[in-house]
Amino acid sequence: MSDAYTALEARFRRLALLSESIGMLRWDMSVMMPPGGVLARSEQIAALKLLYHELMTNPAVAVDLDRAEDLENLNDWQATNVQRMRRRWLHTTAVPADLVKATTHAATATETIWRTARIENDFKSVLPSFSELLGLVRDGAAAKAAALEVPPYEALMDLYEPGATTATIDGLFDDYAAFLPEFLEEVLRVQASRPVPELPNGPFPVKEQEALCRQLSEAVGFDFASGRLDTTFHPFSGGVPEDSRITTRYDEADFTSAIMAVLHETGHAMYERGRPGSWRYQPVGETPGLGMHESQSLIVEMQASRSRPFITWAATIIRAAFDGEGELWSADNLYRLSTRVARSFIRVDADEVTYPAHVILRYRLERAMIDGDLMPADLPGAWADGMRDLLDVVPPDDRNGCLQDIHWYDGAWGYFPTYTIGAMVAAQLFAAAQQANTGIVPGLATGNFEPLMRWLRKEVHCLGARFSTNALLERVTGQPLDPAAFKAHLKSRYLEDLT
Amino acid sequence: MSDAYTALEARFRRLALLSESIGMLRWDMSVMMPPGGVLARSEQIAALKLLYHELMTNPAVAVDLDRAEDLENLNDWQATNVQRMRRRWLHTTAVPADLVKATTHAATATETIWRTARIENDFKSVLPSFSELLGLVRDGAAAKAAALEVPPYEALMDLYEPGATTATIDGLFDDYAAFLPEFLEEVLRVQASRPVPELPNGPFPVKEQEALCRQLSEAVGFDFASGRLDTTFHPFSGGVPEDSRITTRYDEADFTSAIMAVLHETGHAMYERGRPGSWRYQPVGETPGLGMHESQSLIVEMQASRSRPFITWAATIIRAAFDGEGELWSADNLYRLSTRVARSFIRVDADEVTYPAHVILRYRLERAMIDGDLMPADLPGAWADGMRDLLDVVPPDDRNGCLQDIHWYDGAWGYFPTYTIGAMVAAQLFAAAQQANTGIVPGLATGNFEPLMRWLRKEVHCLGARFSTNALLERVTGQPLDPAAFKAHLKSRYLEDLT
Repeated sequence: MSDAYTALEARFRRLALLSESIGMLRWDMSVMMPPGGVLARSEQIAALKLLYHELMTNPAVAVDLDRAEDLENLNDWQATNVQRMRRRWLHTTAVPADLVKATTHAATATETIWRTARIENDFKSVLPSFSELLGLVRDGAAAKAAALEVPPYEALMDLYEPGATTATIDGLFDDYAAFLPEFLEEVLRVQASRPVPELPNGPFPVKEQEALCRQLSEAVGFDFASGRLDTTFHPFSGGVPEDSRITTRYDEADFTSAIMAVLHETGHAMYERGRPGSWRYQPVGETPGLGMHESQSLIVEMQASRSRPFITWAATIIRAAFDGEGELWSADNLYRLSTRVARSFIRVDADEVTYPAHVILRYRLERAMIDGDLMPADLPGAWADGMRDLLDVVPPDDRNGCLQDIHWYDGAWGYFPTYTIGAMVAAQLFAAAQQANTGIVPGLATGNFEPLMRWLRKEVHCLGARFSTNALLERVTGQPLDPAAFKAHLKSRYLEDLT
Repeated sequence: MSDAYTALEARFRRLALLSESIGMLRWDMSVMMPPGGVLARSEQIAALKLLYHELMTNPAVAVDLDRAEDLENLNDWQATNVQRMRRRWLHTTAVPADLVKATTHAATATETIWRTARIENDFKSVLPSFSELLGLVRDGAAAKAAALEVPPYEALMDLYEPGATTATIDGLFDDYAAFLPEFLEEVLRVQASRPVPELPNGPFPVKEQEALCRQLSEAVGFDFASGRLDTTFHPFSGGVPEDSRITTRYDEADFTSAIMAVLHETGHAMYERGRPGSWRYQPVGETPGLGMHESQSLIVEMQASRSRPFITWAATIIRAAFDGEGELWSADNLYRLSTRVARSFIRVDADEVTYPAHVILRYRLERAMIDGDLMPADLPGAWADGMRDLLDVVPPDDRNGCLQDIHWYDGAWGYFPTYTIGAMVAAQLFAAAQQANTGIVPGLATGNFEPLMRWLRKEVHCLGARFSTNALLERVTGQPLDPAAFKAHLKSRYLEDLT
């Protein structure tokens, strides 16, 4: 193997270990850290990030990348690895260190103000800081655009969804936006014709909810000898393949939210655990994009766990966990609870039918702001207009509108599309999985995820980032990302003929 | 300020943040991490340690240190800071990177074998690996000895107790070894003349023990908005001043061990919290040595919390925690429980009278091994001889002898003396504190640590490493480290005339 390529692998291994360390410090910050530690922890993370930046901007990396790109004896994995390294290098080196630092500072300040602004429903209070942050983000986007040779918004999106273009996203999203209004009406009509789903009466003690969550997560394949389940306000998945850290939150009045969050995060963890071991610590051993990552959580949560076969099995487990008796504990009622659809203001509480509308709105607005076509001061009005167009509702205030998400205020721009890409990829992969292995759905009916997981490990997980999301979909499903499978899934689930 | 000095401060700030990050990864490893994460975490820590090494061995550090040492306009804190930086630099750069790596590897392997060897009482199984490790440690000691210009054993000890000499340690330890036999007999005679201390009947649920531990820790001054209490097999103290992480373990049959461990670790945490804020992240803002650090835990545990006034107050709290009633819950019985003395084989369970004997034994043996005067194969015999000389007992097997401690097998040599230095410093400081503020002991009788902590913050904590341990003791007590105060404390407590 060439010295240049070998040196790059060694360097990116160090970068990956540094990223993992930063990830652990962040996990602890979210899950364990007492409030007094915030500043000290921020300093630690900033120090590690600076070391990361220095390792990546070392001139030897550029030299080795140039050399490795000229090599002709690399195998496909190695060649893809070099491409992924170059992409990551471009993202890190494109933006001047001073601008990175100023943006991080502005994001921290804006996020802090936003926390209060959201509670107090006071968009004006965060507007100056938000405008300043946007200015810096736009400068960063311009710098990345020059390096990546794509438009500024695409340069931001590229960090999360490498290679994604606005042309593609527009195609997917416009199609869904056109499909949604009539479909949603129909879903709501069908839903209204059926019994109203009703929550069993709580309270449901946290201890018992947690035991149930662990049981269900283990059914999917989670191994607590190599992972943890903890509690946070916003559920997330972190850690490393050998040590997955998932979190959820518990509502003592409603056990369904904790369960579904755990199943969702378990999907992320299973993907991480299935990564190709021989490419551990290399960019090609990671994910082709966050849409693919999200698809793995949504296959477990939306495709598998909110399906009627799974809920029918899970109902028995759930009843046993809470000593539940009576009609409200029936599989039918629990299934209806898990598949309720409603127009709503809050993205994170939205069902899978309306969720993409929330994402499409944010995509359009953030792109307009990055392109300079929408001023921050005009955001509340644009938000209301967008919600009216997409979902035919208008939020009563900014707390239920443009102040609801941390994204943007924390400096993350271009991330939103990955949620809906993930939903579409999930549907397309799950349809292919079902076709390839007719034992998958019957498996779910007995709480057996093994057939599904075996298929995912083989066709998705162990490929890492060897193929782009579209190339992987073509290999496995015969075509690139196509919203048809997602729409077919929704029609089948929500217009299901029960007669 | 000179460029060289300013550059050094910036560099050591980065090193400190890197050390803190490593510390957090280690804390998580001990407290939270599932077993599956061991290898991945070791890789992360190794990567951060390599970065630390690279930052420290950067040639610019040597140049700046030379320049800074020639500066005449540094104030006392800055000048001491440069001395401490040089010492740390010497420790890091003295040993070739290959030797560091080989030693780390050998230590990991030996520690793993030791875990089984201890359980199976099989010293022979760890002997080959242990011998190899010792060889590498001796090579490292020789390299450090050349750099520090002291004998090899002192070079190892210097990492934990900067500037300590074997001449001083011999003086302190020989004095105590001569004092102990007759004194111990007398203590045991006095103890035998009094009622036998007896544990109240359990079980004592972990939940209630933990609540009690938190209450007592808060009484000392621990603030749970800036710290955590968790559970580990071996109690320890970690984290950073703004985010203290202390641990304990719970025995449902005996609540006293958890309480005393928490009070001990709280003492460490209070010291960390009291470090001079304006020297945060600088060597001069840390501790002059681990003996001083240990003294702060022992002042809280041994001097204050095992005192009759404190136990009298705590007895009320303890009774309330467990609904205790009757003679076994009396302050007298609880005090006798907290001050039991006995010859024993296990260091970590030893009382404060016999503890130094365990340390003296280890000091003598590890020094002989480093000096080449004792071969590892002869360790079990030398251990038995030493225990007979010092405590007049012989362990029945190696599990109760030379296999009991992780030290040595994990590569830590030269650390043991700090425990007894800490006990002696604690007694000397506590005597001075009592003299300076006559409200300290009456405070303890009402659970009020404020007078003691105020004194410690002012006279010890906020000085960081501005003075060496001896210099600090001279400032505060009028003389350098002297075992007299420790012996006086033991006489007063254990030969107390109750008539």
